Amino acid sequence: MAKKTCIVLAAGDGKRLKTEKPKVLMEVAFEPMLVWVLDSVKASGIKRIGVIIGNNAELIEKRLEKYKCETFLQAERKGTGHAVMQAESLLRERQGDVLVVCGDAPFMDEETINGAYELHKSQGNAVTVITAETPAPTGYGRILRGKGDRVIGIIEEADCTDKQREITEVNSGAYWFNAGSLLDVLPKLDNDNKSGEYYLTDTVELLAERAGTGIGAYKTANGNVTLGANSRRALRLLNKIAAEMIIDSHLDNGVDIIGESSIIGRSAVIGKDTLIMPNTIIKGETVIGSGCVIGPNTLIDSCEIGKNVTLNNVQAYESVIEDNVKAGPFVHLRPKTVLGKDVKIGDFVEVKNSSIGEKTAIAHLTYIGDSDVGGGVNFGCGSVTANYDGVKKHRTVIGDNAFIGCNTNLIAPVKVGADATTAAGSTITRDVPDGSLAIERAQMNIKENWGRNYERKDK
Amino acid sequence: MAKKTCIVLAAGDGKRLKTEKPKVLMEVAFEPMLVWVLDSVKASGIKRIGVIIGNNAELIEKRLEKYKCETFLQAERKGTGHAVMQAESLLRERQGDVLVVCGDAPFMDEETINGAYELHKSQGNAVTVITAETPAPTGYGRILRGKGDRVIGIIEEADCTDKQREITEVNSGAYWFNAGSLLDVLPKLDNDNKSGEYYLTDTVELLAERAGTGIGAYKTANGNVTLGANSRRALRLLNKIAAEMIIDSHLDNGVDIIGESSIIGRSAVIGKDTLIMPNTIIKGETVIGSGCVIGPNTLIDSCEIGKNVTLNNVQAYESVIEDNVKAGPFVHLRPKTVLGKDVKIGDFVEVKNSSIGEKTAIAHLTYIGDSDVGGGVNFGCGSVTANYDGVKKHRTVIGDNAFIGCNTNLIAPVKVGADATTAAGSTITRDVPDGSLAIERAQMNIKENWGRNYERKDK
Amino acid sequence: MAKKTCIVLAAGDGKRLKTEKPKVLMEVAFEPMLVWVLDSVKASGIKRIGVIIGNNAELIEKRLEKYKCETFLQAERKGTGHAVMQAESLLRERQGDVLVVCGDAPFMDEETINGAYELHKSQGNAVTVITAETPAPTGYGRILRGKGDRVIGIIEEADCTDKQREITEVNSGAYWFNAGSLLDVLPKLDNDNKSGEYYLTDTVELLAERAGTGIGAYKTANGNVTLGANSRRALRLLNKIAAEMIIDSHLDNGVDIIGESSIIGRSAVIGKDTLIMPNTIIKGETVIGSGCVIGPNTLIDSCEIGKNVTLNNVQAYESVIEDNVKAGPFVHLRPKTVLGKDVKIGDFVEVKNSSIGEKTAIAHLTYIGDSDVGGGVNFGCGSVTANYDGVKKHRTVIGDNAFIGCNTNLIAPVKVGADATTAAGSTITRDVPDGSLAIERAQMNIKENWGRNYERKDK
Repeated sequence: MAKKTCIVLAAGDGKRLKTEKPKVLMEVAFEPMLVWVLDSVKASGIKRIGVIIGNNAELIEKRLEKYKCETFLQAERKGTGHAVMQAESLLRERQGDVLVVCGDAPFMDEETINGAYELHKSQGNAVTVITAETPAPTGYGRILRGKGDRVIGIIEEADCTDKQREITEVNSGAYWFNAGSLLDVLPKLDNDNKSGEYYLTDTVELLAERAGTGIGAYKTANGNVTLGANSRRALRLLNKIAAEMIIDSHLDNGVDIIGESSIIGRSAVIGKDTLIMPNTIIKGETVIGSGCVIGPNTLIDSCEIGKNVTLNNVQAYESVIEDNVKAGPFVHLRPKTVLGKDVKIGDFVEVKNSSIGEKTAIAHLTYIGDSDVGGGVNFGCGSVTANYDGVKKHRTVIGDNAFIGCNTNLIAPVKVGADATTAAGSTITRDVPDGSLAIERAQMNIKENWGRNYERKDK
Repeated sequence: MAKKTCIVLAAGDGKRLKTEKPKVLMEVAFEPMLVWVLDSVKASGIKRIGVIIGNNAELIEKRLEKYKCETFLQAERKGTGHAVMQAESLLRERQGDVLVVCGDAPFMDEETINGAYELHKSQGNAVTVITAETPAPTGYGRILRGKGDRVIGIIEEADCTDKQREITEVNSGAYWFNAGSLLDVLPKLDNDNKSGEYYLTDTVELLAERAGTGIGAYKTANGNVTLGANSRRALRLLNKIAAEMIIDSHLDNGVDIIGESSIIGRSAVIGKDTLIMPNTIIKGETVIGSGCVIGPNTLIDSCEIGKNVTLNNVQAYESVIEDNVKAGPFVHLRPKTVLGKDVKIGDFVEVKNSSIGEKTAIAHLTYIGDSDVGGGVNFGCGSVTANYDGVKKHRTVIGDNAFIGCNTNLIAPVKVGADATTAAGSTITRDVPDGSLAIERAQMNIKENWGRNYERKDK
Repeated sequence: MAKKTCIVLAAGDGKRLKTEKPKVLMEVAFEPMLVWVLDSVKASGIKRIGVIIGNNAELIEKRLEKYKCETFLQAERKGTGHAVMQAESLLRERQGDVLVVCGDAPFMDEETINGAYELHKSQGNAVTVITAETPAPTGYGRILRGKGDRVIGIIEEADCTDKQREITEVNSGAYWFNAGSLLDVLPKLDNDNKSGEYYLTDTVELLAERAGTGIGAYKTANGNVTLGANSRRALRLLNKIAAEMIIDSHLDNGVDIIGESSIIGRSAVIGKDTLIMPNTIIKGETVIGSGCVIGPNTLIDSCEIGKNVTLNNVQAYESVIEDNVKAGPFVHLRPKTVLGKDVKIGDFVEVKNSSIGEKTAIAHLTYIGDSDVGGGVNFGCGSVTANYDGVKKHRTVIGDNAFIGCNTNLIAPVKVGADATTAAGSTITRDVPDGSLAIERAQMNIKENWGRNYERKDK
């Protein structure tokens, strides 16, 4: 198989979006646009990718780590042709065919990349432009076709005749080039135009002028490939399109999604007959089993969730939640939480960096941090693991079937044995053996005829 | 009055929706589609209803309990004609007229059912098809009309000429039949078609072939009667239509609904000048008085709520909330809660299976369970009713104007008298007489020059 | 400069909206429609404003306090002409030019008011009607224009010929009048029409009949100026238009707004690169710095928020939140809270009427009320300021770098010194000197072989 290379144009700044961030890092469905593009390029089977970066290059490089791309700095912004020139060494090394794509057009897809490649090879083209039909061509370069539907050029809107302006096939800004042909014409680009920039589009005309050079155009069925974001309003529209696209794919998999207010990221996997209630956000590499009820008002980021789980008004981060867990409303599960099967978490509960055994119940107003909790444990309301002594964090260990009384303070490091009990209101400062009761409590006194002006007299 | 009977076709499975549930149990505005249909049938005055059920019949029967329907099992799925045949005994017993409706077309309404019945009787028809005009007839059977607008048949889309395909009057799938006529032609249905199924539609043609038999069509003004859900996307659309329909009816009653994210179920009654803030869900048989502010982020399920109530970020289930109550944000009211007039509930409070007297204040971080609380009581922050001893739940009783100190544990069963006080941080294990102070507290000691490394030294 | 006066028609009741409130107090984007109108009038530079009020006049007068308007009671509802007559004394006193606007058409803007005034003066008109093009003119008075595009009249829909009904330039209901001319014709209005009301529109015809009197029309580019609310459905539409208008203006300023469920009031100022997550409500005179993440599920009312602040599922009212604060999820900040730089607030925390010093951490399940807290303080889980003794509220003062143990009760008035520590579970009833440890705790006992039936035995 011929060598395939990709160059991603990612040097654009965010001035028009009034952001300090590089434009390609602006997010669609909680992922930078550049990540959308790179995922499609990777999925299409291209292994060598050069990314042209500009301002704030280090921010982009950080996001690229897992993609193992090469980066090329375009120190000055002199147009798309100039951008591609920065990767000249990569083109020379690789030869073969090179896909050039925009890092800020997130909806480029694997099928389009590969469909265009097949046409490119079967026609032996020097360049194959990826095009799309759009009902709203304003602002795009139009595709000129001649006899036999052959592409004869791309004309920018500014240069269109009235008739040409009616053309609805437009340039997506993505191309397959023969690397050798591209290297031949890149040095011939000039910046003798209004912006004073070197345009990659001009390579098409330069190649067309060469005798016997094939110019092709692949019209994709995915009309969204042309969409980019030159304003926050446009970025918002991309987000809306992405949100609907993702929701439709989950509906088609048998997921129920109630209302218009939930937003699901690109990477979530959700089982059938799971119900997503309104105003739910699902982010990161989250997997949710079947038969769950997620939401309302639930935020899940990078969690692994089993079957028949109920999460009502929960925020859960980087946690594992096993089958039949019920949690909520008003619950915060912080990273490294593991909830075993059939665990019940009630309202106003935080769990952090802890494993909770099967069937344990944490009903209300409780904080469990840095703890290893057995199965069948019952936490009374207001239980607290005091895991921080002002200097270090310590762990709490609780055995199976222990009963932690209301408003118990467990001063870590501390161990409560299996079947042990702590009396309500006790501060537990040393280990409690299995099956025993720990109690820290003064005598209760009654002062009669106390009347009003309560607490004051008590001092 | 002639006898009216209804047969509801409810045997469809959910394969196309990728659900294990029977299709008619898929929900629109928090109610199964079958419930929408049955409510309209009941409202139209029909008292005997036969429901044809298929897979997971027991799930449907459970939901039907309050409707007192007869059910008929269609063990094999052999088409709508075959489905109706399963209720042959009901048709023979009842005679008169029979309405056949789809259990998965939720927007069939009382006016349509009765309007069609009147036409059916006035024309003395053997069958009266319920039809509707739709701008998007694709997929529906078209209504053929001849001279004098008389119905001459129903033609399925697959069999339409190009001209017939332009017809915009379509079959809703609901019919009034003369029971005797229907019984005559049902045995004559055959399954000699592509699907190998017995179609109820074919009865119309069979009846039309009989000399002197009237065939009618009632075109309803409610264009939504034809809508069903053959995919989750379609189900989502039904939900959107239902949501807007319900919201419009509340607006017309003088309710304010801010934003697009609230969803109100079919059965809620809401008083005028009540404001529904964004992202509010109202379900079940909920009644809300006038002048309330409900939401944002509030979920109410089956509650009775008085006038001038404020519920901000509250989840309330099967509770009674009297006039002028203010609750929230972040409040959980579990079933069997009764909040008297002018009660104030602050943040991070759960109340469960308890009655709270007038003007009582529960300001923050408190759990009241299984309690009978008087009026004018003040709960300090962190008050807890320890209602569970690991074996049983017990009740707490608190008299009028008692003052419960912060972080008090009330170990039930226990009684705090009227005007009594509990000191902050006390665990109350026995009854507190009226007007007295209960205190459980050790001496407070100061250790000077303690410095850092705090809690550790304390062990 | 000539004297400019404004008369705002605000006497309409809310019958058609089924509200007890005056119609002009119905809200669009959390502000009464009347406030929208008055803000535009003020912005256009008009200093004397008369407001015609009707039922529930005192409710309107309360909202008008800061605008220093004069009010004129229209005791009976006899039409718009009659309404203006109530302000006759103001017209006589002021002379010059008078703008008449509807108090229930919230989108009237400064540019339109001033553009119309310029035309009015340059043409020396007796009246200049403010008009707009609309694709949906149904219900509006149409503008009749003659030779040279000159206005020759306004014709109500009921009186339109079919041809006139196609006119898409409509009357906004707002006018600039020469006060003298208006005073001349007002007494000549009659109520000889179907409603029996005196129509202000009729003044145009009366003025047109006078020789040499100029009649003009200013067609504004803002098509929304005509929009009012004669039903709750229409009011909801106004809210939707306003929401989109406001969101677009923030997008254009470099703010990111995810999803469709957030609603931002008219007065909020938000810095660039701030991200508004779904279901966020921003009300009042709120200022938010750049680089913040606000939401999801956050409600901010009248707060001052610095840069790089994170508010996740927070409700904040009349508070000051300095740079780099992180709060949430599930946090309630009540009025008069000041959070210093780098403060961290975790889950289930309420702060009220308190100042919290830099870098202080309040991680979970804590209530801080009426307190002055230094910097670098650490609050353990369940800390409570017991600020209410049943009679009065008292303050708590905590020095820098103090460490408050879990479930500590601070019985105000009380002072915890700098670098002081309180042991977990202690009730602190008197001052704690700097650097010392305060502890209130009984001895902890273990009872072995306690077994099940826990708490009961403990009584």
